[in-house]
Amino acid sequence: MAITLYWGSGSPHSWRVLLALEHKRLEYESHLLHFDKQEHQSPPMLKMNPRGRLPVLKDGDYVVFESVAVLYYLDLKYPSPPLFGSSPEEAGVIMRVICEFQDYAEPALSRIVNAIFSDQVADALEELTDAMHRVAREARTIEGRLSKELWIVGDAYSAADMVIFPWIQVLRRALDRSAAAELGSRFLPMEKNYPALARWIGRIEALPGYARTYPPHWHEVAASPAASP
Amino acid sequence: MAITLYWGSGSPHSWRVLLALEHKRLEYESHLLHFDKQEHQSPPMLKMNPRGRLPVLKDGDYVVFESVAVLYYLDLKYPSPPLFGSSPEEAGVIMRVICEFQDYAEPALSRIVNAIFSDQVADALEELTDAMHRVAREARTIEGRLSKELWIVGDAYSAADMVIFPWIQVLRRALDRSAAAELGSRFLPMEKNYPALARWIGRIEALPGYARTYPPHWHEVAASPAASP
Repeated sequence: MAITLYWGSGSPHSWRVLLALEHKRLEYESHLLHFDKQEHQSPPMLKMNPRGRLPVLKDGDYVVFESVAVLYYLDLKYPSPPLFGSSPEEAGVIMRVICEFQDYAEPALSRIVNAIFSDQVADALEELTDAMHRVAREARTIEGRLSKELWIVGDAYSAADMVIFPWIQVLRRALDRSAAAELGSRFLPMEKNYPALARWIGRIEALPGYARTYPPHWHEVAASPAASP
Repeated sequence: MAITLYWGSGSPHSWRVLLALEHKRLEYESHLLHFDKQEHQSPPMLKMNPRGRLPVLKDGDYVVFESVAVLYYLDLKYPSPPLFGSSPEEAGVIMRVICEFQDYAEPALSRIVNAIFSDQVADALEELTDAMHRVAREARTIEGRLSKELWIVGDAYSAADMVIFPWIQVLRRALDRSAAAELGSRFLPMEKNYPALARWIGRIEALPGYARTYPPHWHEVAASPAASP
């Protein structure tokens, strides 16, 4: 069986699956698709996922998408090392933290990042400030967890870390924009405002294979200040 | 180990867990909390789930919440009969369909149902009509699946059915209100517009233990036309 991953650079959902594949040291064929060329909406891609969203993972003839479902599939198919802990109790907490992140943080994160990268901060400053408050509240909860443990749930790197980490990186990149200076003022620098989260980011960045998961177009940032997420 | 479920009548998230417990024929102590008395926000409840949301499941000393995480925990702890299929491939599809429902249908469903039960349909008719279109699009996809198979994924009742069914019931109940007549005109009656979905609802209603999952305050509907969801 050969695994192929179709993904987009800077998509937090794609990044989750790359982190999982690297953690499990699975071999995979990497297909980086270009959003600006609409490659994710090509007929062969729409045949696999009619919504035209990334990531899409193909394992032999089997196709799965929606990032959390991909992590879940990979963990059942290739159990070691685990993504969802080593007991039903641990698995329940990991999935609970993922669901909470999706319910309470992701809509606000998505709103903020999209507004910054489409240069619409000034038009919606009040709403975005409110969204930043919601993100900050969730970040404080995660900061609390990470001030006591090395990883978001328990003592091992898990799907909870993989789900949350890419969004934090995308948010940091967005808030670094000059137009977002006011929005980001109480969030950045993370070393000062969220020291445990900052150390956790450093731990993930030091993991083997991390460089292969890093959004390729982010390396070009200096050359292209208007790059999308 | 004794299982206790803290739940709310008419909460689609609570209903999912009741369906799962009944399907697995697990014994559980049922604690119905009253939203109108703020029982879900009592100190002992907030100690288990600081967000004060239901359902919350306690299994011995272990606490888990967020409905999909509860289903996932129950399935790992009490594997038979399964909620997430019988292979990694089937599990991946079930989780994918759940994630898609949460991403693409649930926000619109929640908006519509809340507006109807708080008598705010007229104020937001355009937005709600748009939300109804989104719901109808997702319902057509599910109708397509159910016109070929008995259950939403494959040939067995699964977590995908348990996640989606309560929302469809809550939506039907909301659209039955006279203020929602226009919104519901292309959705109801389901027997005509979504015949496969209507038959699937009948199949779930005929399952053993279904009566124990049915929102108790819905029995009182005739006596109390202004009841909440």
